[in-house]
Amino acid sequence: MTTTIVSSATKEVRIGFDERFVIIGERINPTGRKILAEEMKNGDFSRVEADAIAQVEAGAQMLDVNAGIPLADEPAILAKAIQLVQSITDVPISIDSSIIEALEAGLAVYQGKALVNSVTGEDEVLERVLPLVAKYGAAVVAISNDETGISEDPNERFKVAKKIVERAADYGISHEDVVVDPLVMPIGAINTAGLQVMDIVKRLRSELKVNTTCGASNVSFGLPNRNGINSAFLTMAIGSGMTSAITSPLHPEVMQAVRGADVMMGHDPDCANWIKAYREPAAEGTEGARGGRSGRRRRRA
Amino acid sequence: MTTTIVSSATKEVRIGFDERFVIIGERINPTGRKILAEEMKNGDFSRVEADAIAQVEAGAQMLDVNAGIPLADEPAILAKAIQLVQSITDVPISIDSSIIEALEAGLAVYQGKALVNSVTGEDEVLERVLPLVAKYGAAVVAISNDETGISEDPNERFKVAKKIVERAADYGISHEDVVVDPLVMPIGAINTAGLQVMDIVKRLRSELKVNTTCGASNVSFGLPNRNGINSAFLTMAIGSGMTSAITSPLHPEVMQAVRGADVMMGHDPDCANWIKAYREPAAEGTEGARGGRSGRRRRRA
Repeated sequence: MTTTIVSSATKEVRIGFDERFVIIGERINPTGRKILAEEMKNGDFSRVEADAIAQVEAGAQMLDVNAGIPLADEPAILAKAIQLVQSITDVPISIDSSIIEALEAGLAVYQGKALVNSVTGEDEVLERVLPLVAKYGAAVVAISNDETGISEDPNERFKVAKKIVERAADYGISHEDVVVDPLVMPIGAINTAGLQVMDIVKRLRSELKVNTTCGASNVSFGLPNRNGINSAFLTMAIGSGMTSAITSPLHPEVMQAVRGADVMMGHDPDCANWIKAYREPAAEGTEGARGGRSGRRRRRA
Repeated sequence: MTTTIVSSATKEVRIGFDERFVIIGERINPTGRKILAEEMKNGDFSRVEADAIAQVEAGAQMLDVNAGIPLADEPAILAKAIQLVQSITDVPISIDSSIIEALEAGLAVYQGKALVNSVTGEDEVLERVLPLVAKYGAAVVAISNDETGISEDPNERFKVAKKIVERAADYGISHEDVVVDPLVMPIGAINTAGLQVMDIVKRLRSELKVNTTCGASNVSFGLPNRNGINSAFLTMAIGSGMTSAITSPLHPEVMQAVRGADVMMGHDPDCANWIKAYREPAAEGTEGARGGRSGRRRRRA
């Protein structure tokens, strides 16, 4: 039973086969958010603060923090954003950058055990990111693409993941501290994308014994009612063994799908989390399972 | 690849590993519906008619018809209800009764190949129902309980299913014409109910090569936000290989979960069914996958 433990100064979060699914809030990311990018560049972190609080209130157990703003001092901005988020919430952070210096600046100020987001299977990236992860005793998100890009063949993506896990071990990083992102394709373009993810997640779990994550919303790219597709995807991915996702917790429909999936997996003892989230003033729980199967069947004489 | 083919006079429906999930509308059932029971008993089928049309419009590919009214002439009422439903819709019917004479009366008037709902693993029931199924060339729902009741042990339920499939073969009924209901327990009482169903569905599919169905709503008995639990359950059950359910199609949330699951399983080519159901006036499909993973990752230099 693989468990990835990350922490803030005061709180531990466990990503694992026997744990509730972990939502890593994706909102603190200036990519495609012009106003946020401009504000962060100018040292205004009010929106970062609001996004952090809103996501934790909505149910995110971790927060992803990204400061990827063109022509800005990303390392300094990322470090500042992380310090701010840590000062107002107690959830562990996923330090998200494609710039090594920014990852290092973030790790240097981080209190607790962070999740580094991310390393790919490219040799140069592996050689620069993994020593950092090892130095700070962090965990790391492994994205299954390499120099050749993102393969549409899930077997190739599995191979890249395996390479990263093995290389991490060379640096003394346990497979328990590598969380693999198998990369989710838009299902509108590749109709087998859902089956691919389920298959690769099962293999990652049984063969590499690693936890998994994904950017869930990519699956619905180009389709109407994206939250509906994202909900179906997350439920089914959890059913196949996925243990975390980097996504927005601000869609009640998506959070409901995740909470429901936790119930189905037996990861919500006595359905306490579900009942807390959806308890109604009227005692609906006392209503009979009218037309329910087990009840009806007992009629047979 | 197992396929159960049922039909009306003019329409064929395929329940199968490679087919869209089949919703069998459960509403035409007087159990627990006092007004409907009274009306049907008095020969007023207006509500049956309305329920039939509403369910087909909501997406049911088949309709379950039950006339189990205490102290009423169930065979006659069931036959009449079936004839009425067949006169106003073209979907195949699941003929639902625990009274052999009612099943026979329904089969006698049915046009097409019906689904008989149901047979259990009780010897006496097997010996009476299976010859009827064979005589009329129907398919049958096999419910995995027997003389000892419903076992909480999924292995016992699997054994009962196996017994029914084998006994059906003795009567010349192919495994393709046996649709097993593994029985879904209320997850509020039995927290492993979801895992049990996923496990038993996988075994029914790989070992017995049969299609599966269930009364989906029983899983949420006693919990708040039952549609939320039912949606998570159906999505995950479909992910594990379940191929049909006897449930109400009148909850848009549940139908959305099923349509989303069809997309995830690769059973909705080009997502055509999804797009038809959820297409919006504004072209949301042109919106970029902001923060989407594949897109963002390409930034890494």
